[in-house]
Amino acid sequence: MSQTEKHQKAIPEGATQASSDYFTGIAWIKALVPPNDQTDCTVSDVTFEPGARNNWHTHPNGQILVATSGTGYYQELGKPIQLLREGEAVNIAPDLVHWHGATPDGRFTHLAINPNVSKGGAVVWLHAVTDEEYYSYQS
Amino acid sequence: MSQTEKHQKAIPEGATQASSDYFTGIAWIKALVPPNDQTDCTVSDVTFEPGARNNWHTHPNGQILVATSGTGYYQELGKPIQLLREGEAVNIAPDLVHWHGATPDGRFTHLAINPNVSKGGAVVWLHAVTDEEYYSYQS
Repeated sequence: MSQTEKHQKAIPEGATQASSDYFTGIAWIKALVPPNDQTDCTVSDVTFEPGARNNWHTHPNGQILVATSGTGYYQELGKPIQLLREGEAVNIAPDLVHWHGATPDGRFTHLAINPNVSKGGAVVWLHAVTDEEYYSYQS
Repeated sequence: MSQTEKHQKAIPEGATQASSDYFTGIAWIKALVPPNDQTDCTVSDVTFEPGARNNWHTHPNGQILVATSGTGYYQELGKPIQLLREGEAVNIAPDLVHWHGATPDGRFTHLAINPNVSKGGAVVWLHAVTDEEYYSYQS
């Protein structure tokens, strides 16, 4: 089954547009689990429209991404862009510089899981991903 | 769009059948993020065939469920069964007695996120959910 034949998730009800301060293009964020004492984890649903991506950034407490619809891009500083396919996860070490987003051709949705929220500093935003960086993907 | 018209996820490649010691009916588990030092969280994809559910149990460190395909059941001890619809999450407090699974009519998939794995004791299994309990759902 090709990518274009796949079921494409709609933007979830109640999602809000991600800030252009930290995102290039259009992305939507919906908080599924807010900060809480029970698990000390938050979970958000993030949908990137084709071509959209977030800035380079780090997570002082790490982060887990799980691709839930479509195929996206994920890149760690100094490494090539890798694909993140529906059903795949990536476990991101604290302070690792990276970015993620859609491919140029399709909408992409992932869950973002932030552990140990009570330690503070869930994300440190850096500079935008340039077009040169974004279009560097080689299959 | 009715439930039956929706896209139904296939069982992920590499999933293994859940133990009949702790599950009633057929369920499939695939580890997406194994125990690790970076985030100290694990993530698993769990698919329940219609009618399948896990035993009553607790998580000493809590757990988050995110429904990713279909509609399932979730019940906390002493409360009625509630529906868990695609895109919804539940944040489960440490030591709360509960169970989850598919409805009688459709396959259900959720992600299970376990925080603070290094503290040990991710799950404490209790008795099976009886048919009387399982069929007590009232819409």
